[in-house]
Order: sequence, then C-alpha cells, then structure tokens
Amino acid sequence: MPYTFAQKLAAEFLGTMLLIAVVIGSGVMAENLSEGNNGVALTANTLATVFGLYILIEMFGPISGAHFNPAVTMAMVLLKRQKSAEMLPYVLVQLAGAFVGALLVHQMFDMQLLQFSEKPRTGWGIWTGELVATAGLLLVILLANAQRVSAMVACYIGAAYWFTSSTSFANPAAAFGRMFSNSFAGISPADVPGYVAFELLGALVALALYKRLSPATSRAA
Amino acid sequence: MPYTFAQKLAAEFLGTMLLIAVVIGSGVMAENLSEGNNGVALTANTLATVFGLYILIEMFGPISGAHFNPAVTMAMVLLKRQKSAEMLPYVLVQLAGAFVGALLVHQMFDMQLLQFSEKPRTGWGIWTGELVATAGLLLVILLANAQRVSAMVACYIGAAYWFTSSTSFANPAAAFGRMFSNSFAGISPADVPGYVAFELLGALVALALYKRLSPATSRAA
Amino acid sequence: MPYTFAQKLAAEFLGTMLLIAVVIGSGVMAENLSEGNNGVALTANTLATVFGLYILIEMFGPISGAHFNPAVTMAMVLLKRQKSAEMLPYVLVQLAGAFVGALLVHQMFDMQLLQFSEKPRTGWGIWTGELVATAGLLLVILLANAQRVSAMVACYIGAAYWFTSSTSFANPAAAFGRMFSNSFAGISPADVPGYVAFELLGALVALALYKRLSPATSRAA
Amino acid sequence: MPYTFAQKLAAEFLGTMLLIAVVIGSGVMAENLSEGNNGVALTANTLATVFGLYILIEMFGPISGAHFNPAVTMAMVLLKRQKSAEMLPYVLVQLAGAFVGALLVHQMFDMQLLQFSEKPRTGWGIWTGELVATAGLLLVILLANAQRVSAMVACYIGAAYWFTSSTSFANPAAAFGRMFSNSFAGISPADVPGYVAFELLGALVALALYKRLSPATSRAA
Repeated sequence: MPYTFAQKLAAEFLGTMLLIAVVIGSGVMAENLSEGNNGVALTANTLATVFGLYILIEMFGPISGAHFNPAVTMAMVLLKRQKSAEMLPYVLVQLAGAFVGALLVHQMFDMQLLQFSEKPRTGWGIWTGELVATAGLLLVILLANAQRVSAMVACYIGAAYWFTSSTSFANPAAAFGRMFSNSFAGISPADVPGYVAFELLGALVALALYKRLSPATSRAA
Repeated sequence: MPYTFAQKLAAEFLGTMLLIAVVIGSGVMAENLSEGNNGVALTANTLATVFGLYILIEMFGPISGAHFNPAVTMAMVLLKRQKSAEMLPYVLVQLAGAFVGALLVHQMFDMQLLQFSEKPRTGWGIWTGELVATAGLLLVILLANAQRVSAMVACYIGAAYWFTSSTSFANPAAAFGRMFSNSFAGISPADVPGYVAFELLGALVALALYKRLSPATSRAA
Repeated sequence: MPYTFAQKLAAEFLGTMLLIAVVIGSGVMAENLSEGNNGVALTANTLATVFGLYILIEMFGPISGAHFNPAVTMAMVLLKRQKSAEMLPYVLVQLAGAFVGALLVHQMFDMQLLQFSEKPRTGWGIWTGELVATAGLLLVILLANAQRVSAMVACYIGAAYWFTSSTSFANPAAAFGRMFSNSFAGISPADVPGYVAFELLGALVALALYKRLSPATSRAA
Repeated sequence: MPYTFAQKLAAEFLGTMLLIAVVIGSGVMAENLSEGNNGVALTANTLATVFGLYILIEMFGPISGAHFNPAVTMAMVLLKRQKSAEMLPYVLVQLAGAFVGALLVHQMFDMQLLQFSEKPRTGWGIWTGELVATAGLLLVILLANAQRVSAMVACYIGAAYWFTSSTSFANPAAAFGRMFSNSFAGISPADVPGYVAFELLGALVALALYKRLSPATSRAA
C-alpha cells in the first residue's frame, strides 16, 4: 500500500469536492440554458454526472478507494474491508469536500458563496426512491467486476437520476453538500435528515441482499 | 458453478424487477419534466435504459446469465445452453419481477399501485417493428463477444428504442410488466399478446439466421 | 478463416441493412417526436446511430470485416488487405442491404414502401463536409487499435454528424439507401452523385495521409 | 520510437485542427438546429466533443502523445517526459492547427473564412472556472491509467463543459482557435489572454497536487 493515510484523506476530500461541484455546477449551467425544459436540464445534469463520476473513481480509486460517500465507507467497514478507525476521518473529509464543492460552484458562477437550498424533497414516495437508489448503488459496487466498477457506478447513477423519484442522491455527503446551494440540485436543510436515514437504510438492505447472493465459500464477509 | 438455483432465480427476479423499474420509472420522470417534447422524453428514457441494462447484466450475469427475458431463456434452452427444466421457473420469476418493478415505480412516484395502461400499441407496422427488435436483440446476444455482451445489449436497445416503430420492448416480461403502468412506457393489456407473439417469432428468426452465419464446426448448436 | 464467402456477403448485407435502418428509422422516430426542434431530433438520431454502429461492427466484424461501406472496401482493396475480386460482390450486397433497410423502415412505420427523398444536399460547403467526413472515417479505421475499432468508428460518426455540414454520410451505400426515404435522413437522388464523388475523394485523401503517418517499416501498404 | 519528429508534428497539427473543428463545427450545427434552446445546443456540442476527443487521442496518441494543447505539452516538459527543445515546435503546430480548424469549419458551413468572435468571456467567476477546468484536465491526464486516458480525457471534458462557468476550454490552443469564429463556441480576442493565463495557472496547480498525491518512490517527477 504505497499511499499514506493523509494522501487517502486528500483523495477523498478532492474527489468528493469535485463530485459535488460536478453535480451542482452542471445543474446551475443546465438550468441557466434550458429555457425551462427540465427534461433537457436533467439530461445535461445526468451526462455531466456520469462523465464526472467515471473519471473521479478512475483517478482516486487507486489512492483511497474512491468512496466519496459515507454510506460506502460504512459498508466497507461493516464488510471488514476498511478499518473501523478510518471511518470517522473518511466521513469528515467527505463532508468537508462536499461543502467546499458547493462554495466552489458559487465562486465560479458569481453566486453568493454561502446559501441554503429552499427546494423541498420529502415524503414516502421520495424516501422509498432514496432507499432504492442507495440499495442499488451499494449492490452495484459489491457485485461489480473490479476492472469496471468506475463505469458501472457512473452508469448506475445515470439511470437512477431518472428511475428513482428522489433523483438518487444515494450519498449522505451529497445530501449535506447540496443543502448549501439554492439551485437545480439543491435540497432544503430540513429534508436532509430524511434523505440520510433512508440512504443508510438502503445501504443495509444492499448488504443483506449481497450476502444472500454470494456463494457460501468465496464472497461471504 | 458456485451459485445455487435459488440464487439464480433471485438474480433473475431482482434483475427483471430493476430493469422494468428503470424503463417505467425513467419514462414517468421524463414525461413529468419534458414539457410535452417526447423527443426529449424518449432520449432521457433511452439513456436511463442503456445505463441500467449495462449494469444489471454486469451485476447478475455471473449469477444467472442475466436473461431478464423469457425470449432469451427460450433461445438458450433451444440451443441447449440452459436445461429445459429451468425454463418455467426462470420465466415465472421474470414475470413476477416485472410486475413488482411496476409497483415499485408507482410507490416511488406516489402513483396508484395497481393500474393498467391505456396506451394502444398495435398494427402490422408495430408488429414488424417488434419482430425486428427481438430478432436483432437475440442476434446481438448470440454473436457478441462474451466480454462485451453487457455493453452490446445495452447499446442495441438504445438504438432499437428509436429505429423500430414499437420502441423495442423485445421482451415478453417487459410487455407483461409495462401493461401495469398507465404511463409513458405502458402498453394496453389487449395489445400484449400481439407483442409477445411477434417477439417469440423474432427470436426464432434470429436463431435461424445465427445458424446460417455460424462456422460449420464451431458454433452450430 | 472459418467463414465462407457466402457468409461474408450475408454479413455485409445484414449489417448494411440494419445500419441504414437504424439511421433512417431513428430519423423518422426523432422527427415524429421532437416538436420541430431539430437539435433534439439530431441528438436522438446521433445516439441511435452511435449505439447501432458499435454493435453492428462488433457482431459482423469477425465474419466479414464489417465494412458496410463501399469506400471502406475500396480502401481495403487498395491497401491489399482485401482481394480485388471480392470488391464488386461486397459493394453490390452493401447497396442491396441499404435499399432493403430503407424499405424495412417504411414497413415498420406504416409509410409508403418505395419513395424518393426530396431533401436537397448540395453545394461546395456540404461537399467539403462530406470529403472531410469520409477522410476522417477512413483515417480512424486505419489508425485504430483493433480492439477498439468498433467504439472508435461509432464515436467518430457521432462527432461527424455534428461537426461536418453534410451530417457525415461518409458512405456511398448510405447515400444510395437514404435517397429512398423522404424523411429526416433522406437525400434527393439528384444529389447522391455529388456525395459519392466527394466520399471517394475523401477516402483517397485518408490513404495519402495514412501513408505519411505510418512508420517506414511496419505500416506501409 | 518508430515515428519521426515530422510525423509527430503532423499528428499534433491534424489532431488539434480536427479537435477545434469538432468543437466549433458542432457548435455551429447545434446553434442552427436547436431553436434557441442552448441547453439542447450545449448537450449536442458536448456529445460531439466527447466522441471526437476520444477518437483523436486514440488515433494520434501512439504517434505524438496527442497533446493538442500547449498546457499539456508544458506540463510534460516540466515533468521531464518531453524534451524541452520540442516544446516550441509542438505549440506552434498546435496553434496553427487550431487556426486551420476554424477556417475548415467556416468553409464547410459556407461562412466567411476569416472572422473574429464577439462573444465576451471574462470576469473572476469565469477565470476561476477556467483555472478549475485546466487543473482538473491535467490531474486527469497525470492520474489516468494509460489504457483509459483517451476515454477519461473525453469524459472529463464532457463534465467540465457543464460544471465550470467557462465551459472548460482548458487549452490555450483552443482559446486561440476559437477567437477566429463568431459562433456558439467563440471567444472575443480581448478575452483570450485572461483564459490563457488562468489555464497555465491551473496546470501549475495540477502539477503541485499531483506531486502531493504521488507515492514518494514511484511517481515523483
């Protein structure tokens, strides 16, 4: 393992910062340009996110594992693939990166640096969506061929932006960062806890399904 | 073969459920957002389906073969690549998965859980489209390089959504599940038998073409 | 070489037929759905063509080389990678496939089977576009890594639909087949000779560039 | 190394010419077709650029390294992966290629050959965007798996067109060439120096980050 723990944390910080910048920034650009057609805006937001996720996982995967997501780090700890002492530092830099990513977008687009979203995202439909979205993401990561995990996670999120009612945040750090932007990809701070709860629940559902789908000898945690 | 038959059936159930959820759910989201421009809506529906199919085949291929489609299972049995006794259980869980996938979308989008489509899809043009769509799909699967079959099936369906007049269901389980959703991707129950008949006919056309295109020694069934 | 010459011709026929069906059919669907926004229609037409080309080259490449294009067959003969006696049969089945592909679309979309395009595509700008488009296509094929040629040709055409003024037919068989469809992807019969002439000229430009870019020892024809 | 230096320069010239032709040409086509919806236009421009970059890097990478970008050449010289005496010739043919690429588009689209953009692109927000865009591009190149660098650079630019406020030129040769086209992708000549300055600054930021993220023994320059 040639990377220091500080390098791993730097990779998680940079990767989460850029991921959230891609998600929020492409949402701002898309809403500015799409003449009120949100189908066009979400298509653009989707393509940017798919492209961005693919390259960020490729770039930072060899260094830190490219989680960028507390739910993923939690699952890796539960599967004993990551040391439990590393969980808190990972999560903290992910949250910090998400926050800085939002500020970076606002600086680039001449918007007020610190702001809060007013977009409501709540209710049983949306919560079911977020549970499904996160369960799907974790199952993709756990069942993926290692050579293709970057493309698979990117493609999964590209599908989940559309097929889940929550537009698939599937990531507590994303929910945290997106509450700091009153734009296309934002979420009202009051609705973040609901998202996070159903994301963590979805991750546990995925772990349960994964164990049932694994051969008795090779994959069990 | 490290997977139990129950695991294979679970993979077919989950895969078909998620496939139909992607197809119907992205159609609901796309129609909601696209301001009546169905070109935009079908583009979004296409991208979500391509991304979703790719990851579902990657995830579940090693477990069950990732058919998610009775026409594919039938072809594999006819080519003696799958035991004939496995056909009925495979088809039943595919149909069940498709049904549950439709319900899952309705739960996520706060729609009535049980509903029936009123969208007519019938006539010789559309039936020809569905025959071509399914023949193409089977030929892709049979001629594909095994390392690339996930990307190829996904890309094929992405093309066939547009070049066939039926928007390429190419899958009796999809036709079954989509009749339970009165939304963008739906099909009136009365029109499902026509779709299924021409899908099965298309699969047989593909098998005939495949035998003619195979080298005498290596590929013949 | 395990394939018979008849199988190669069948592969060229089927591949060209399906390629032209994808191009014309997705154009029909896109124009029907896009509410007069040709930017949306050409985006859909582009995605369908990229997806379709990729899978057709993958499927039929191992059998016939997957030319689907008289300019490609001509270049392969000039480079002595294909027997010159095979050129005429290849070109004839490509043209036949393109014609049948147009008819197949009209059957699927309930349009008059035999029709002629009234869309003018002519002038020095467009001819320059078609020369550039075909030179680019041939150079891509000749410089491609063999493992990636399917993806590269597909992506090239996806770019060339937009950056050339002719929307990049880059294929005399495509120009031939598309004159039989009075739809989005059509071309007036009177304008086909101009397209074909500049396509062949573009192919020769690519061969000249390729020789200059090849190492003296390894790649020269 | 089987290629002569003249072949390398030819590859840089052709590659940069075609890259700029793809960027500007697809912008012209997209603006012509998109009925004033710039969300649609930039989506098309993005897809064409992603497809084009992928194939150009694949084609010319083995010959010249496929920089097409003075900031990349500068970074390679600073990392001692390219001889410093090769820098000036590389940059000159990149600039020449970018200029010719703009003229080629104008010839194809029947526009006045020599023209200057009137599109303002300036201010701290946009400059921050261009710094981020170029730092990201260089970091992608430096951290990429060599087998995937073509796809990664293409996907990165696809994301950066949307998430940066500058639409990510990230390339002094692109800024130079785009000032010669008064179209969708243009930039006013007065604003080119600002873009170039922040691009070079972004490249230096990337080099600093790269050294911090590299294992002490293996990757240090």
